[in-house]
Amino acid sequence: MATRGEYVYLNGSIVRAEEAAISPFDVGLLRGYAVFDLLQTIGGAPYMLAEHLERLRSSAETLGLTVPLSDAEIESIILEMLGRNAHAEATVRIVLTGGDSPDSMHFDPSTPTFLIVTHELFDVPASFYETGAKLLAVEHRREFPEAKTTNYLTWLRNHARIDSEGALDLLYHDRGVVSEAATASFYVVKDGRILAPGSGVLWGTVGSRVLDLAREVYEVVLCEVTMDDVLGADECFLTSSVRDVVPIVRIDDETIGDGSVGPVTRDLMARYRRHAHGG
Amino acid sequence: MATRGEYVYLNGSIVRAEEAAISPFDVGLLRGYAVFDLLQTIGGAPYMLAEHLERLRSSAETLGLTVPLSDAEIESIILEMLGRNAHAEATVRIVLTGGDSPDSMHFDPSTPTFLIVTHELFDVPASFYETGAKLLAVEHRREFPEAKTTNYLTWLRNHARIDSEGALDLLYHDRGVVSEAATASFYVVKDGRILAPGSGVLWGTVGSRVLDLAREVYEVVLCEVTMDDVLGADECFLTSSVRDVVPIVRIDDETIGDGSVGPVTRDLMARYRRHAHGG
Repeated sequence: MATRGEYVYLNGSIVRAEEAAISPFDVGLLRGYAVFDLLQTIGGAPYMLAEHLERLRSSAETLGLTVPLSDAEIESIILEMLGRNAHAEATVRIVLTGGDSPDSMHFDPSTPTFLIVTHELFDVPASFYETGAKLLAVEHRREFPEAKTTNYLTWLRNHARIDSEGALDLLYHDRGVVSEAATASFYVVKDGRILAPGSGVLWGTVGSRVLDLAREVYEVVLCEVTMDDVLGADECFLTSSVRDVVPIVRIDDETIGDGSVGPVTRDLMARYRRHAHGG
Repeated sequence: MATRGEYVYLNGSIVRAEEAAISPFDVGLLRGYAVFDLLQTIGGAPYMLAEHLERLRSSAETLGLTVPLSDAEIESIILEMLGRNAHAEATVRIVLTGGDSPDSMHFDPSTPTFLIVTHELFDVPASFYETGAKLLAVEHRREFPEAKTTNYLTWLRNHARIDSEGALDLLYHDRGVVSEAATASFYVVKDGRILAPGSGVLWGTVGSRVLDLAREVYEVVLCEVTMDDVLGADECFLTSSVRDVVPIVRIDDETIGDGSVGPVTRDLMARYRRHAHGG
């Protein structure tokens, strides 16, 4: 379990977590009306903060919300929190809801709830990188796929099964058309080309960086990706802001390719590691 | 705007709303992992409380949650709150979330967040009952249709349009197959028969009562209902715990039947009014 930061930011103040009181009338709670973004620190510094804040603002706009602070103000708050919370490396979760509502329907977009919390960066099992990970395929269509909303009903409902089957995440498809993993972007490698679901997905911060690196060497195709494409792929991998590039070698009980981590995935893992971590 | 009750119930205590602090790490907030139910008072007393609590327990079970109190305990709390909050008539909203989470993924189902809030019962415009209401059709499939979760992203995102078009609610359909309104059950009348979407819908507390009353006079058919059925219907109506039976005479810019409130709907409105309100 990740250790939570002792201090959180809520609507103008950095306070101890137990003093941060969300209203019981918040539409983020009563109606699930909220967006967020999540990033990690590398060497103690927020990584790709500008990209994450750009995505947060875009998610907010999709729901008719507005991030109430500038990037510089948010960065300053995060740095102050990281100093106080003293994680080795952290994840930073930035949450924006419609705020307090008089009737659990209407809310004033000019008075949102803006919350930032941090956790110790969690460890991803090394075996996922070394021998590849498993996903569980689930039929699901996100309501606003281009926005990172807080709706993770399907993911959390399946969490016990993810853990018990030793899987890393869910793979979402809508009647066979693949979109993304529940908490990551998802890609297919076939005949040396990289296939990326072209629509109905969240813009991936790390994913787009990995595709940029990939384009130096491989052909990248944005297209419709089906479950047949996945099960007939040479390799699959996912990308995530808190897990980099992870090879996927199994979907449910089906093996991808020969079941080992393929050369394109290995190459992209190494390229991204050098790019992001300089190692 | 509905007036909120001054007192709320949260995890064992009835407190003033401003003292009720939801944790910023609650999975109901961070992950939208929560269910609820909503009922109204009639003559100051909770109406169909047993049915609403049965549905709440069923919703909770769908998400692997458990309502932490007995029906009698919950009734006692609600009566105490209604006494303190002194509404003329009230809506009572009972919310259950997965509770506080160490890592925004895992939570302990034995320590949920259990919240009850009340509002003054809102007025539905009389014209909706007299001349019928309008719905806006939106393609949407709820993730766990049999559970009343707090996910109302699509509804709230469309709320400004509902208001500006003078509509009452949204009508959800999935590629043309109709399920329900965003906040109500939905039925079609054709050739004297009542067609009710037979699967993929929330069990309606008032809806099931209205169908029972209807069966005394009409044939009721649970079946697949399409948008073509709706647009070709003689009459349409919705049912809701806080609005009883409401005639629907318009979907977007399309008129249902001759655009007036039909005889079957009028009959069911009167039957349910007598049944529930004794008037």
